[in-house]
Amino acid sequence: MTDNSLPIGVFDSGVGGLTVAREILRNLPNEKIIYFGDTARVPYGNKSADTIIRYSKQIARFLLSKEVKAITIACNTASALALSAVREELDIPVIGVVKPGATAATRETRNNHIGVIGTKGTVNSGLYEKLICDLNPGAEVFSTACPLFVNLVEEGMIDDPITVQMIHRYLDDMIDKNDIDTLILGCTHYPLLLSVLARELGAHRAGDGSASGISLVNPAYETAIALKDMLKANDLLSDRTEPVAPEEHSYYVSDDAATFRRFAEDVLGIRADNVELKVLE
Amino acid sequence: MTDNSLPIGVFDSGVGGLTVAREILRNLPNEKIIYFGDTARVPYGNKSADTIIRYSKQIARFLLSKEVKAITIACNTASALALSAVREELDIPVIGVVKPGATAATRETRNNHIGVIGTKGTVNSGLYEKLICDLNPGAEVFSTACPLFVNLVEEGMIDDPITVQMIHRYLDDMIDKNDIDTLILGCTHYPLLLSVLARELGAHRAGDGSASGISLVNPAYETAIALKDMLKANDLLSDRTEPVAPEEHSYYVSDDAATFRRFAEDVLGIRADNVELKVLE
Repeated sequence: MTDNSLPIGVFDSGVGGLTVAREILRNLPNEKIIYFGDTARVPYGNKSADTIIRYSKQIARFLLSKEVKAITIACNTASALALSAVREELDIPVIGVVKPGATAATRETRNNHIGVIGTKGTVNSGLYEKLICDLNPGAEVFSTACPLFVNLVEEGMIDDPITVQMIHRYLDDMIDKNDIDTLILGCTHYPLLLSVLARELGAHRAGDGSASGISLVNPAYETAIALKDMLKANDLLSDRTEPVAPEEHSYYVSDDAATFRRFAEDVLGIRADNVELKVLE
Repeated sequence: MTDNSLPIGVFDSGVGGLTVAREILRNLPNEKIIYFGDTARVPYGNKSADTIIRYSKQIARFLLSKEVKAITIACNTASALALSAVREELDIPVIGVVKPGATAATRETRNNHIGVIGTKGTVNSGLYEKLICDLNPGAEVFSTACPLFVNLVEEGMIDDPITVQMIHRYLDDMIDKNDIDTLILGCTHYPLLLSVLARELGAHRAGDGSASGISLVNPAYETAIALKDMLKANDLLSDRTEPVAPEEHSYYVSDDAATFRRFAEDVLGIRADNVELKVLE
């Protein structure tokens, strides 16, 4: 029987998964987390399934060695390409971000026209489409990779004229042509563009006379809620009654810890006190 | 005594170093090369010196196992951060791209105001400045990282309005304020922007009344020439009199070979027949 006071393992290709960690900290305040960011090998988005599976298994084994009770794959690309491989390796519950995102989108849509944006790896996997159509066979799903969004976010160019131009270039036609009313932000960095996306896509819609308003689905939030359900179903929710303090969480990175700590604190307001370097090979 | 019919090892974080390979193939047509692109862990530009040194040593040892007579570090970031570490590991000649680039810039400049653009790793290393000032203590060097250029090139956005805007944002002030007459393209991807950079920076200069014309230094070409000198000095130039055929060169990548082959052929016109996957850990 697993001890429910054990921490939850969370991993990502780098800093992006901290958007998922943040939602876990907010929505499961009594749970401790151990986060691994593969900052030495980031990004995963353009790399092959074989490589992503190999890296994900290494990280999952590392987290298991730290005695976690469950694992959240915070990276959309790794969730899309490596979730079943990681599940096969481990006998603890493992959750990815794709299914919670797909579930929320089928709940949100009114016209069953759903858009998915993510990395090339996530989009090419076709997993969002598959899961959405399993949930709602009448849904139509339109996907496009927006590879530059990650770089723009990491350069701090969140509300920037260049980012605004790229939003319109990647998305205007796709949304108009397919009359999309719900868009899944299928990459951990994209929630950081949430308000710019909402403003730009809303303004675009209103300007060209099509239905205004487009629901933006953030799989990070949905995953935290699904994680809570999964822990409950497995009798693994922590018994603690007081919230976990920031210094009780642990963070590991495969490259420079200082850069990671800065991003966590400046961009996401996460106080990452314990960041350790851990080379995985 | 090393056999001068052995190949030359060339390595890079990914595909970018093929710009250096291309110059070697053009300028040393009788030499065989073995290229390694670390596509599973690309990019190196934003990562720490420790990580870059570790990866570079692994790759150098792999190339040595393939019996190369000399090594060219085609990546500016790895040349800036790991050249001496790699030299310490090996007893064959090793050359990087930074010194040939620095040497060419001191030869080209008329007013001794030299600009350097590259990744954050290359710029923060300060190596271009150091080598330029060793060669010409009167030179003034101004550096800036242009991290998005790599992503824009890899997305095929070479002559694109977004790339043009980023060129002016990164460079106009730096060039004007410091009256730069020579600019080193200190990242393997940047030579692919050569004609756009020349047009945009030239137009900017002419438009604002400052001296027109700015020399763009391509370390890839300079490195091929310096490699030839290094081989000659070590009595390692190939005795072959007929050029090496494309299928005699070998290429290794740490991620998906198909993507690499496509970039080599489509973007650089290099026929990479023998591309093999080689996981390094």
